[in-house]
Amino acid sequence: MQKTIEKLKELTKDVVLLEHAVATLSWDQETYMPPKAIGEKGEQLALLQGILHEKITSSDIGKLLDDLGADDNNPAGKSDSLSPTNSAYIKETYRQYKIQTRLSKKLVTDLALETSLSQASWIEARKKSDFSLFQPHLEKVLELTKQKAEAVGYKETPYDALLDEFEPWSTTKEVADIFNSTQPWLTDFIGKIKNSKQVDDSFLLKDFDISKQEIFGRKVLQDMGYTYDRGRLDVSVHPFTTTLGKDDIRLTTRYQKDFFKTGLFGIIHECGHGLYELGFGDKVRGNLLASGTSLGIHESQSRTWENVIGRSMSFWKYYYPELQKYFPENLTGISLNEFYRGINKVEPSLIRVEADEVTYNLHIILRFQLEQELISGALSAGDLPDAWNKKTKDFFGITPDTDANGVLQDIHWPMGAFGYFPTYALGNLYSAQFSSVMEKDINVNESLENGNLSDILDWLRNKIHIHGASKSAEELVLDISGEKLNPEYFKKYLENKYKQIYNL
Amino acid sequence: MQKTIEKLKELTKDVVLLEHAVATLSWDQETYMPPKAIGEKGEQLALLQGILHEKITSSDIGKLLDDLGADDNNPAGKSDSLSPTNSAYIKETYRQYKIQTRLSKKLVTDLALETSLSQASWIEARKKSDFSLFQPHLEKVLELTKQKAEAVGYKETPYDALLDEFEPWSTTKEVADIFNSTQPWLTDFIGKIKNSKQVDDSFLLKDFDISKQEIFGRKVLQDMGYTYDRGRLDVSVHPFTTTLGKDDIRLTTRYQKDFFKTGLFGIIHECGHGLYELGFGDKVRGNLLASGTSLGIHESQSRTWENVIGRSMSFWKYYYPELQKYFPENLTGISLNEFYRGINKVEPSLIRVEADEVTYNLHIILRFQLEQELISGALSAGDLPDAWNKKTKDFFGITPDTDANGVLQDIHWPMGAFGYFPTYALGNLYSAQFSSVMEKDINVNESLENGNLSDILDWLRNKIHIHGASKSAEELVLDISGEKLNPEYFKKYLENKYKQIYNL
Repeated sequence: MQKTIEKLKELTKDVVLLEHAVATLSWDQETYMPPKAIGEKGEQLALLQGILHEKITSSDIGKLLDDLGADDNNPAGKSDSLSPTNSAYIKETYRQYKIQTRLSKKLVTDLALETSLSQASWIEARKKSDFSLFQPHLEKVLELTKQKAEAVGYKETPYDALLDEFEPWSTTKEVADIFNSTQPWLTDFIGKIKNSKQVDDSFLLKDFDISKQEIFGRKVLQDMGYTYDRGRLDVSVHPFTTTLGKDDIRLTTRYQKDFFKTGLFGIIHECGHGLYELGFGDKVRGNLLASGTSLGIHESQSRTWENVIGRSMSFWKYYYPELQKYFPENLTGISLNEFYRGINKVEPSLIRVEADEVTYNLHIILRFQLEQELISGALSAGDLPDAWNKKTKDFFGITPDTDANGVLQDIHWPMGAFGYFPTYALGNLYSAQFSSVMEKDINVNESLENGNLSDILDWLRNKIHIHGASKSAEELVLDISGEKLNPEYFKKYLENKYKQIYNL
Repeated sequence: MQKTIEKLKELTKDVVLLEHAVATLSWDQETYMPPKAIGEKGEQLALLQGILHEKITSSDIGKLLDDLGADDNNPAGKSDSLSPTNSAYIKETYRQYKIQTRLSKKLVTDLALETSLSQASWIEARKKSDFSLFQPHLEKVLELTKQKAEAVGYKETPYDALLDEFEPWSTTKEVADIFNSTQPWLTDFIGKIKNSKQVDDSFLLKDFDISKQEIFGRKVLQDMGYTYDRGRLDVSVHPFTTTLGKDDIRLTTRYQKDFFKTGLFGIIHECGHGLYELGFGDKVRGNLLASGTSLGIHESQSRTWENVIGRSMSFWKYYYPELQKYFPENLTGISLNEFYRGINKVEPSLIRVEADEVTYNLHIILRFQLEQELISGALSAGDLPDAWNKKTKDFFGITPDTDANGVLQDIHWPMGAFGYFPTYALGNLYSAQFSSVMEKDINVNESLENGNLSDILDWLRNKIHIHGASKSAEELVLDISGEKLNPEYFKKYLENKYKQIYNL
């Protein structure tokens, strides 16, 4: 038994190494690649994805999983004598093996190739704010994505198959139920804020020297516990975190001269992702369980750092005097309280990644609804811009001025990541639920006011990071908070914070 | 027949794509990788090298080569009706197939893994100038390299097998004969220079702002015809040029604040390599023939740009006034003639990459002799530093002050590239031979004095670059100059140039 598991780990190690090689090529594509290299980069990625597919679907792995008794009813195999980590290892291997064996190598490489080209067309389309440049690529990617969903299979709707890739063991219905229960509350809460006196954040829209933004951002990164011996920070169009090796977890961000929040909160957000990957314990490090257990949980880490911590009064009690020294021309005379209210301004807006934490989940629900329609066929790619604009008007009362500020703003559809968006909103919900426990365990505010971020990192590491994917999202949230994912925590978190800011 | 060749091209395309993926990981390793990532990077590279090995040795390729009648006596197959490019394609595929089928996958991956670790140890050893940190790795790499030579096979000496990897179809004896015929002449010529009045280059050892060095270097790069839509320039410990895709040819350099020549001439040198790879014609672009036909020919391109052009009076007639504007604090009052003599100062020295073009080939002959002894077993890794120092004293009359400035200066042995060094000296010889023809075909000096580098690039592109590896080094030099490689061209080139500079 032990020998079979060791053999399985040996075979799946190549899968992990190849995933990291793919991540290296993708990171390069987003950061340093010369523009004309895109065509062949797509071919290279398609080839590697094909080889990866061969590896994970190898009959050797199938045979070992068989020997361990893993099947749809017993994804972790049939033995009772396994350690929890080994059970989780078999379960995760089975999940990936099962999905991948249902996909043809052709479909995998076609998807890799098309999504690479589609991302390139999206960059161009976004630059020119011209959806028509992207539309034919979106159509191809959608067609392949539908084929993928059919091949993988699902219980109720093709979207289930897509969601499972990012949020394993979750269903469309579960997510829809949670979103449906928060949407009216959010709309109502935003309405109350709208009727209150708006806060002033005009001082954040001044000229913030980018090199100083970077220095300050790197200072916070260091305080958060991120180190450059196992990582990097670079610039890309769309910020992301990626794992190129068990000791190579890289962040990217982007800076806007006239919008201070993008750079710093982007860095803190990505660093939250990075610390998760850097914190995997020895039992999972470098193997198939060395990944976020779901993207929702992953996002809970970035959102905890970005919002619960990074937009808190206590955090800025420590950092604001320092920030004022960096940007005296903009921040002299702006009190801590004004600054705190400014960075937490709630306002319906067009761009998801710049949205405040109250309106943010509405951006997600919008995308969640649209992508379900795209996958079901109820909505065609050509009709997407109109549908996008209409829903933006419904949800936020505003209409995008350009496609670049509307339907073309996100990289996810260009990269074929349908089913990904909901994980962002789930992340906010998980974050609130985890944080409420963390605040009982340690004195978060006191730590923050002393500029001590290590207690927080330790808590997150021991409760969440260390496990990697050896505990499912559901197990994690149950272990930590004693209950299933419950959106009430998020509502309470928002209420506490914003009632004070907006005097509701 | 045509169908068989098309099938062969299709199969070997994956080989090219994988080579580029490997190049991406290696480029990353030398430029942006965080230090702790090195261990797994080695594993990733080993895995990819193993897959590459599987691809090129696949029985499908073997079968096609068989069908085409390719064997040791007819590496290009048996048909007379093939185009020269298709013949060359078969020949090159057969060469790679033959070599790789003789290597076990284990040996290939062991070499990839060990050389990756060995490079990391070399970086550390060089930094601390402590050979003992590198020695155990060198021993392992040497052992594996000997196994490689035995597996590949050779006619006279194991070193033949290693040389052939970099300078296909050349033998140790041929190279030794050429070197033996130039060594006494070089020693004699250097002696004459030593007895002349030395030129002054102290103005090059002042403080040259690195960011200005970079701007000037990039200006020259642009004038040479290098563009960032298909390339990049970054910084690495050891400068190199690498191909990550048919439209992705990247250069690196390094800058020294107090030694002006390193940065600029490094950039010009690497750009010479880059232009070769960027100039491959449509018949070879993106396929197995899209490579320098030998490293000697590759080096002829970098050396032509660096030395024949970049260190010529005509080049600086155009660029020197501009350079003076960049660095008035160092160059005001230094005449063009003084500058020209300064950048061409001949002096026995410790560091190969900083050596002048007269003493340079002696550095190579030193390494060529030592590495033959390492491979034959006449010299052990442990005795290498002493042997290195002794030979440096014999050849140059000086002894390295540290191992960093001696035996640890080059990356080649750490990366397992035995048989590589001689190609540098061959490059100098080819360069002189090609240039003598180029100077008959076009008015090189007039072009240079007008800052017009495109005539030169066109000549090199049409005569050399466009062919990629579809003509062997021997064919190229014969086609262009009407004779085989002849070191007399190089002697004449040096004599003409340095008799004037040193009033011999």
